[in-house]
Amino acid sequence: MPFPAPLRGVVPPLVTPLTPAGEVDTASVRRLTEHLISAGVHGLFLLGSSGEAAYLTDAQRLTALEAAVDTAAGRVPVLAGIIDTTTARVLDRAADAVRAGADALVATAPFYTRTHPVEIADHFRRIRAGADLPLFAYDIPVAVHTKLPRDMVLGLAGDGTLAGLKDSSGDEGSLRRILVELRRRAPHFSVLTGSELTVDCALLAGADGVVPGLGNVDAHGYVRLYEAARAGDWAAARAEQDRLAILFGLTEAGDPALMGPSSAALGAFKAAAHLLGHIDCAATAAPQVPLDESALARIRGRLAEAGLL
Amino acid sequence: MPFPAPLRGVVPPLVTPLTPAGEVDTASVRRLTEHLISAGVHGLFLLGSSGEAAYLTDAQRLTALEAAVDTAAGRVPVLAGIIDTTTARVLDRAADAVRAGADALVATAPFYTRTHPVEIADHFRRIRAGADLPLFAYDIPVAVHTKLPRDMVLGLAGDGTLAGLKDSSGDEGSLRRILVELRRRAPHFSVLTGSELTVDCALLAGADGVVPGLGNVDAHGYVRLYEAARAGDWAAARAEQDRLAILFGLTEAGDPALMGPSSAALGAFKAAAHLLGHIDCAATAAPQVPLDESALARIRGRLAEAGLL
Amino acid sequence: MPFPAPLRGVVPPLVTPLTPAGEVDTASVRRLTEHLISAGVHGLFLLGSSGEAAYLTDAQRLTALEAAVDTAAGRVPVLAGIIDTTTARVLDRAADAVRAGADALVATAPFYTRTHPVEIADHFRRIRAGADLPLFAYDIPVAVHTKLPRDMVLGLAGDGTLAGLKDSSGDEGSLRRILVELRRRAPHFSVLTGSELTVDCALLAGADGVVPGLGNVDAHGYVRLYEAARAGDWAAARAEQDRLAILFGLTEAGDPALMGPSSAALGAFKAAAHLLGHIDCAATAAPQVPLDESALARIRGRLAEAGLL
Amino acid sequence: MPFPAPLRGVVPPLVTPLTPAGEVDTASVRRLTEHLISAGVHGLFLLGSSGEAAYLTDAQRLTALEAAVDTAAGRVPVLAGIIDTTTARVLDRAADAVRAGADALVATAPFYTRTHPVEIADHFRRIRAGADLPLFAYDIPVAVHTKLPRDMVLGLAGDGTLAGLKDSSGDEGSLRRILVELRRRAPHFSVLTGSELTVDCALLAGADGVVPGLGNVDAHGYVRLYEAARAGDWAAARAEQDRLAILFGLTEAGDPALMGPSSAALGAFKAAAHLLGHIDCAATAAPQVPLDESALARIRGRLAEAGLL
Repeated sequence: MPFPAPLRGVVPPLVTPLTPAGEVDTASVRRLTEHLISAGVHGLFLLGSSGEAAYLTDAQRLTALEAAVDTAAGRVPVLAGIIDTTTARVLDRAADAVRAGADALVATAPFYTRTHPVEIADHFRRIRAGADLPLFAYDIPVAVHTKLPRDMVLGLAGDGTLAGLKDSSGDEGSLRRILVELRRRAPHFSVLTGSELTVDCALLAGADGVVPGLGNVDAHGYVRLYEAARAGDWAAARAEQDRLAILFGLTEAGDPALMGPSSAALGAFKAAAHLLGHIDCAATAAPQVPLDESALARIRGRLAEAGLL
Repeated sequence: MPFPAPLRGVVPPLVTPLTPAGEVDTASVRRLTEHLISAGVHGLFLLGSSGEAAYLTDAQRLTALEAAVDTAAGRVPVLAGIIDTTTARVLDRAADAVRAGADALVATAPFYTRTHPVEIADHFRRIRAGADLPLFAYDIPVAVHTKLPRDMVLGLAGDGTLAGLKDSSGDEGSLRRILVELRRRAPHFSVLTGSELTVDCALLAGADGVVPGLGNVDAHGYVRLYEAARAGDWAAARAEQDRLAILFGLTEAGDPALMGPSSAALGAFKAAAHLLGHIDCAATAAPQVPLDESALARIRGRLAEAGLL
Repeated sequence: MPFPAPLRGVVPPLVTPLTPAGEVDTASVRRLTEHLISAGVHGLFLLGSSGEAAYLTDAQRLTALEAAVDTAAGRVPVLAGIIDTTTARVLDRAADAVRAGADALVATAPFYTRTHPVEIADHFRRIRAGADLPLFAYDIPVAVHTKLPRDMVLGLAGDGTLAGLKDSSGDEGSLRRILVELRRRAPHFSVLTGSELTVDCALLAGADGVVPGLGNVDAHGYVRLYEAARAGDWAAARAEQDRLAILFGLTEAGDPALMGPSSAALGAFKAAAHLLGHIDCAATAAPQVPLDESALARIRGRLAEAGLL
Repeated sequence: MPFPAPLRGVVPPLVTPLTPAGEVDTASVRRLTEHLISAGVHGLFLLGSSGEAAYLTDAQRLTALEAAVDTAAGRVPVLAGIIDTTTARVLDRAADAVRAGADALVATAPFYTRTHPVEIADHFRRIRAGADLPLFAYDIPVAVHTKLPRDMVLGLAGDGTLAGLKDSSGDEGSLRRILVELRRRAPHFSVLTGSELTVDCALLAGADGVVPGLGNVDAHGYVRLYEAARAGDWAAARAEQDRLAILFGLTEAGDPALMGPSSAALGAFKAAAHLLGHIDCAATAAPQVPLDESALARIRGRLAEAGLL
C-alpha cells in the first residue's frame, strides 16, 4: 500500500508474545494483530520498546515482524523498529525489516556511545539513504539518553529525510514548538506521540496520532479517543483519556522493591492482553522479573474496574 | 483577602526588576504589578525561579515582595516563593514572607542535599506547621533535581498540608494522573502548571491555572487563553497557545555558546518587559551573562512580529 | 595566622553537633574541635556538606563557626563553607564568616539555577573580590549538579582567584590532569580531596591533603595515613586506607528503604562521634530521618571491629 | 591456553582499524596485535568501547576478533566484548566470540531498557551458563547508564559467575571497597581498571591490571607503569602515569563545537596509532565526525612532545 502522508491515528506498539520457553509465539502475534485491526487502529508498530525489541534476537525480531506483516496483509501499514546502537548495525536491522515486508522504519538516535547532534543527523540521513522505506525518528531519551534537538527534527522533516516522528520524549513543550513550525514547513510530516496519558492534549496541540503501549490492552478506547478529538468533541476526548489514565495504573501492579518499572509495565501489558484473550502467554523475555500472583490479581482488578473483563 | 480554594487562572511569576547597580527597583516592581493586574491576571507569584529568587539576598527578596504586596493591595492574591535548601532555612524565608504580607507560600523540595521521599513529605509538613499561610508545593526537578512523587502530592493534598501544586516538572503524564485522582480526593486543591507552552492542554486535562514566565511579556495573551479554555472554546485556546509558543522563541535569542539557557530566558523576559515599558532596566543579577545587542535585536523582532511592539 | 600556601594535610569537615531540640550545641562543637586538633589534624573545615550547612539557618551557621574559631585559637586554620545558591547570597555568607574569624572561605558553583562556565568563573571572581580571605572552590557535582571544568580551575588557580580546590567530584582522572598541570603553573595552590576512600591514591597523585567526613570518627587514622604517604611509605598508607575503607561501611548502617544515603551517612558520622564521646547528641537536622536502634547497633559493631570502641 | 586466574597486567582495548571504505582492515588488526604483544602487554581486549564495538556489524566484529585471535596465537589471552542490549542478544554475540576462539568474554549490564539489580545479576548468570568461557563484567555507566552495585559484583565474584571486572565506572571509592572485600572473598577474581589516568592509584589500591585505551598509542608506557608498581617503585609508577596523563591530552584535539568527546577520543587513538605506523588508516566508523587537519596537527605535536614520534 502507498504509505499515508502523514500517517494519522492510533498505531499501537505491539507487545511481542512469547511461548513459555521464550520463543516468539507467532499464532499470538497473528491473533493480537487481528484484534487490533478489528478494533479500528490505523497502523501497527512492531519491534518498539513495548515490543521488547531490546530483548529479542535478530531472528526473533524477524519472525515476529513477518507474522504481523502477513496478518495485516496491507489493511493497515506496519512500521518496524530497527533498534540498534549505531548506523551500520541499524542498517542490518533495516535490511531485515525490508525483507519482512514492513511499510516504514523507526530508528532511534545512536546509543551506548556518546554522540553529537551532527552525528545523529548524519545517522538518520545514512539510514534513509540505505533503506528504501519511509523513516520515522524515535525520540526516546529514557532509552538512548539523548533528546533529539528541535532544529534537527525540523531540518530532517523539511529535507525529506524523515517521514515522521514518534515522540516518546515526554517533552510536550518542545513538541508543541515542533508542531507549530511543522504546519508551515512540512505538512506531510507525521507526528505521533508515545505519551499515552496525554493523547487528548497532543491531538489538541496538532499531533497526528498516538503510539500507545496501553493500546495492547484497550485499543478500542484509544480509537474512541482519537475519533472524538477528530470530531472536535474535546470533552469526550478528555473523558476517554481520563478513563485510560486510570487503567494505566496497571503498569504499577508490580512491586517496585522486586522489579524495575520497565519489567512491571511490559509485564502488565502482556498480562492484561493475556487475561483479555489476545495472546496465549504473558511471559516477558529474560532477564526481566515476572509479575507475581498478587500483581496479576491487581491487574485483573483494574481490568474489571474498567469494564474490560 | 480570603485565599481562593482552589486558586484559579493566570498567576504570572514576576521578574524582579533591578537597577543598573543591581538593587531591586521597587518603582518598576510596582509598575509591573499594576500592569499585570490591569491585564486581568488572577494572582501574582513573587520570588520564583523567574523572579531570580536564587540570585537575590534575603533583604532584596523582602524589598521586592513588600512592593508587590503593597501595590496589589488585596486585588489579587500574592504568592511568595520561599526558596532555600532545607526546612529551617525555608522557615526563615517563610517568616519574611509572612511579615511582608504574602497571601500564600510556595516551597520546593530540599535541594543541594540528597534527600528521600519521607524527608520531603516531612519538610512540607514542617513548613505548613511553622507558617500560617496556605502552602503550595513547587515541583521543579530542573532546579532541585528531585521529582515530587505522585503519591506524596496526593497525600499532602488530601490531608490539607498543601493548598496547591505549581507543577514545573514537565511530566505531563504524571500530572494527568494526579489531576484525575485529585478530582475525587481533594477538589479544593489548586494545580497550576508552570509549562507555559502547553497551557491549553493542561487546562483541558483539568489544571486550574498557569504560572507563565512569558506572562511578564504577554499577560493579555495568557488571560485570553485561560478565558477561552474556561468557555470550552478549545480551538481559540489552541490558537492563542500556538501564538504564544512562537513568541516564546525570544528565550533563545541569546547565543548558547556564550551563556546558559537560564540566563538567556530570564534575560529575554526582562528585556521584553523593558522594551514594552513595564520595567525601567533589563539587567539580570550577577553572575548571569547579559544579552548582547544582537540578542536584543532578535527580541525586538519577536515582539514586533507578535504585534506587541 | 598567615594562611599556609599551599594548605596541606588532614582537614576534617566537622559535623555540626545539635542539641535534642535542634539547636547548635556549642559545647560539643568545642569538644570535637579540641579532639581533632589533639589528634593532629592540619586544619578544620566548618559548614561543609558534612557539617549539614544546607540544614542550618544563617544564625546557626554563625554560632557553630564562632565556637570552632574560638576553640582553634589559631592553632590550625579554620576554613568556612559559604554555601548558598548564587553570588550575592554567597557574599552575605562570606561576610558572616569573616566576622566569625574564619581563615579561608569555601564556595561551590551556583546551584538551583542552571548555569554556564562563564558564569561560574565570574561567580568565583566576584566572591574573591568581595571577601578578603583565601578562597577555595568546592567541586561537588552531587550537590550542585555541575562539575567545575578543568580549564576553569587551572585558570582561577593561575590568576590567584582561588587558593585551593576541595575536590569532591569523584572524578579522579580529571583531578590527575589538574594536578599534573598545577605543579607547573601554580605550585602554591592547594588541592584537597574529599574522596575519603582513596586518600592514599590522591596523595600519590600529588594532592596536598584530604577533607574526610570519616575524620569526625577516626581522625587519628587519617593523620597516620597522611604521615605515611608523606614519608613515602605507600604500603603503610595503603593498609591504613584499607582499614578506613572498611570502617566507612558504617555510613550504610541505615535502612535504604527508610532513609536516603545522605541522612544515613551524616547520621552515622554523628552517631559514631557520639559513641566515641566527641559530641553529646547524635541528632541530625530536620527533615532528615534519624537512624533507628538496629542501625546504631551496626555502627557500634563497626567501631568495635575497628578497635575504636 | 589456560586462562590466568586472576588475569593481571596491561590488557589494551584494541581500536578496530578500518579501511577508507569502512571495512575492517585485518592486516592492520594483525599489525597492531603484533605490536602490542611485542610491547609486552599481558592480554588483549577486542570489541570494547575503544574498539568501536557499538559501530561494527556482527560480521565486522567477527572478522576483527578472528584476526586478533589468530595473530595472538595463544601468546596472550584474548578477551572479547559481547556488547548488546540484553541477554538473548548478548548470547548470540557470545556464540560468535566462542567460534572465533576468544579466551574470555566481557559483557555489560543491559542497556537501552531500564533495568533492575535483580535483572542485571540474572543477566550475568545466564550469560555464564550459556557460554563456556570465563566472563568479565564491564562496568561502564557512561554507556549503559547503570552502575553495577558493589554487592552484586561481590556476590557474582564469590559464586564463580564472574572471573573478573573491567571497571570503567570512574567510581574509585566504590572500587576500593570492592578490592578490600575481594581479597578476603575471591582472591582469584581479576579487577582491571579502565581508568587510564589513575593506573598507579588503582594498582596501589590492589587492582590487578588496566585496560587503557591510550595503550593503543603508548603500550610501552603502560607496561613500564605496571612493572614499576609491581616492583613497589611508586615514585616511578607515578612519574610514568603523569607522563601518560599529559599524552592523554590528545583525546581533546578535536573541536568540541564540531564533534562529541567520544568521536574525538576514538579518532585520536586511531590517528596516533596511524601516525606511529601501527595501522594503515585512521578512519572511524560512521556516523562519527572525523578529526580535521588542525586536530591531527595537535595530535602529532603531542606525540612529538612525548618522544613517540
